[in-house]
Amino acid sequence: MKSVARNALYAQAGGATAVLNASAAAVIAEARRHPGRIGKVFAARDGLLGILAEDLVDTSRLTTTDLAGLATMPGAIFGTCRAGLKTRSEDPRSWQRIVDVLAAHQIGYVFYNGGNGSSDTAQKLSEIAAHTGYPLCVVGVPKTIDNDMVGTDSCPGFGSAAKYVATGLREAAMEVHSMARTSTKVFVLEVMGRNAGWLTAACGLAAVKAGDAPHLLLFPEVTFNSQRFLAKVKETVIRKGFCVIAASEGIRRSDGSHVSESTNRDSHGNPQLGGVAPYLARLVTEKLGHKCHWAVADYLQRAGRHIASATDLAHAEAVGRAAVELALKGGNGIMPVIRRKSSLPYRWNIKTVQLSAIAVRERFLPASFMSADRWGISARGRSYLSPLIEGEALPPFRHGLPAYPDLQFPSVPRRLGGFDIR
Amino acid sequence: MKSVARNALYAQAGGATAVLNASAAAVIAEARRHPGRIGKVFAARDGLLGILAEDLVDTSRLTTTDLAGLATMPGAIFGTCRAGLKTRSEDPRSWQRIVDVLAAHQIGYVFYNGGNGSSDTAQKLSEIAAHTGYPLCVVGVPKTIDNDMVGTDSCPGFGSAAKYVATGLREAAMEVHSMARTSTKVFVLEVMGRNAGWLTAACGLAAVKAGDAPHLLLFPEVTFNSQRFLAKVKETVIRKGFCVIAASEGIRRSDGSHVSESTNRDSHGNPQLGGVAPYLARLVTEKLGHKCHWAVADYLQRAGRHIASATDLAHAEAVGRAAVELALKGGNGIMPVIRRKSSLPYRWNIKTVQLSAIAVRERFLPASFMSADRWGISARGRSYLSPLIEGEALPPFRHGLPAYPDLQFPSVPRRLGGFDIR
Repeated sequence: MKSVARNALYAQAGGATAVLNASAAAVIAEARRHPGRIGKVFAARDGLLGILAEDLVDTSRLTTTDLAGLATMPGAIFGTCRAGLKTRSEDPRSWQRIVDVLAAHQIGYVFYNGGNGSSDTAQKLSEIAAHTGYPLCVVGVPKTIDNDMVGTDSCPGFGSAAKYVATGLREAAMEVHSMARTSTKVFVLEVMGRNAGWLTAACGLAAVKAGDAPHLLLFPEVTFNSQRFLAKVKETVIRKGFCVIAASEGIRRSDGSHVSESTNRDSHGNPQLGGVAPYLARLVTEKLGHKCHWAVADYLQRAGRHIASATDLAHAEAVGRAAVELALKGGNGIMPVIRRKSSLPYRWNIKTVQLSAIAVRERFLPASFMSADRWGISARGRSYLSPLIEGEALPPFRHGLPAYPDLQFPSVPRRLGGFDIR
Repeated sequence: MKSVARNALYAQAGGATAVLNASAAAVIAEARRHPGRIGKVFAARDGLLGILAEDLVDTSRLTTTDLAGLATMPGAIFGTCRAGLKTRSEDPRSWQRIVDVLAAHQIGYVFYNGGNGSSDTAQKLSEIAAHTGYPLCVVGVPKTIDNDMVGTDSCPGFGSAAKYVATGLREAAMEVHSMARTSTKVFVLEVMGRNAGWLTAACGLAAVKAGDAPHLLLFPEVTFNSQRFLAKVKETVIRKGFCVIAASEGIRRSDGSHVSESTNRDSHGNPQLGGVAPYLARLVTEKLGHKCHWAVADYLQRAGRHIASATDLAHAEAVGRAAVELALKGGNGIMPVIRRKSSLPYRWNIKTVQLSAIAVRERFLPASFMSADRWGISARGRSYLSPLIEGEALPPFRHGLPAYPDLQFPSVPRRLGGFDIR
């Protein structure tokens, strides 16, 4: 009996990573290896929103060279969104719309590439088959620079962001060291990770040997105390001549308030939007009198494809391929993730987890990955983090800049009427 | 008649660059090629301060491998300072001390590696021979990420910082584009260059084709007007869906005040130390309602050796070598600089300028390098900038991070008494 090929739909959700598009390329390439089972690979523009709006594109025209180029591009080529899906009883209209869109385009496979919040959406989409009888395999593809998904040893996207911040901090620390005797004595780098300190911990890798910068890591899991902080900075400057600090954007005081929420008011009386790094720099300058410099990496760390980790890139491609394999086996409501077999040498493979076990949960940096005084990382933390930044995977450069193909995706003609996304 | 080899002294001054140590390595390597003329190459710790303090190190133990490694390290390996030298009549004591230190160590050549302010110091040092009869050749070696030295087509250090900001902004823009429909619509990157807009202009290179991000460049040479700025951002978001901005740290209002000097006061009544990027982001959010992200690259751009420009590296090494050659010809009070012979293909060589023609002067971004509306760069600006970021020159990596040799420099035993640096 001849099986009929059904189409696949790929979608990206949440914040992008340096290697998210590498997962996209891997899903597309792997799907093409099974032409008898999978027809076209469509992609939704802006994740869930594109599904609801029937705003789909066709990836069929991408050449093998295009796919290789796509794997070198940061960002989310198809666009992304932070919108989630309510339960079927809360929002039956959207659920019916999704089934209509999938059916209109003969879509039998959905690959939803996202983090914690997006896993919840993917999990809900996976219930469509059971609830409505529409035959559908939904497989999640993990990604997040925050590394805060449970169920996986690490998250594709994290290793590259980790490599970005560790490299940048190692370099900047050499600059601070050079000038410390007569100028800047303290440097603060603010990194992402509002609740989970994985990227802050990655900054600790910049210290190749004991005593190297960075000297202080401020994890969001550890309550910020300005007196302790200032005492530690003061002592470090006396002992080392300078002090390099990495701080999570999400550090909080003991009353739970974010340090980035300044108590200062602007001319309209609104609380001033801060930034942890400038706050800490001002504190040090005011209280200790040291000249400070500070940097906020923000999107630079999330999009830093030029310093992507080869290990991370391999992870991102592997979960993309594995997602297709799982779907072809009839998998639904699951996600391929990274399993670590050993750290030294680093060996890993792919295992499968249930989306229901992942969705909306959050994984924090364990205390055992911090040093005893909580100002740095432990040997165990280092052993965990180090393999994830291993290997360089530069994009091709042209005229001194990363060269990206100019990919065009034809829109898939709409077959349904409009839909009002509420 | 046999000439007696005299020692050389190398010093670094001002802010470091990604390729400053490549100049250092080139000076040392070139000096070694002339053992009959140049004895040891000493280096001063922390620039001028090390000369005054007789705090010198000996580079003789560096192997060829060490020198190759030194050329891959950001920062200033020997330390730097921003201290300048007064005139001989203002500070005869320091002048005498310098002559004493040079004489005590048989130093006949000084290579002073710095920017505008440092060129003034080098110029003054070059007057020692004429004023005191002590035989000395002082040759400057140019460097600055600001590219604001007159007399040279470009400054070693600039090309790498330019490549850093252009690459980072190109990558971050892809992230913004990915999320713009439902989340962040405006992104601001703050770059260095307090008075001169060269690095801001370099951000314009991130736009590979017309219409690409960045959409707005805010040069320090152009008065900042918040109404015009907001109107332009608003229009860009309507037309493009998002808006990417690069802003110099030094932009000023029409009254001459820096935008980074916030009018807000902290709890102590002090003016709040700002940052241009967070200021602009807040302005856009308050006035236009768009979600903004912002980044401040700070030292990351100055130390970004991992994304150094191969052209810039070649410049840095060439001026180092040329400085030694000039000194051996008896040159004094001069500096080798970059002369551009053509932009496409990029061809250049070294010419020599008088330090007196450079010192303390400052070169601004010409209006002809800006687009007619002054929100971007012109074709002429692009043609100037583009070759300077050409080529990649990665340092070696180990365990996922730039690998730097652990260089040790024995201190040169002091021959003089202490000196009180005022």
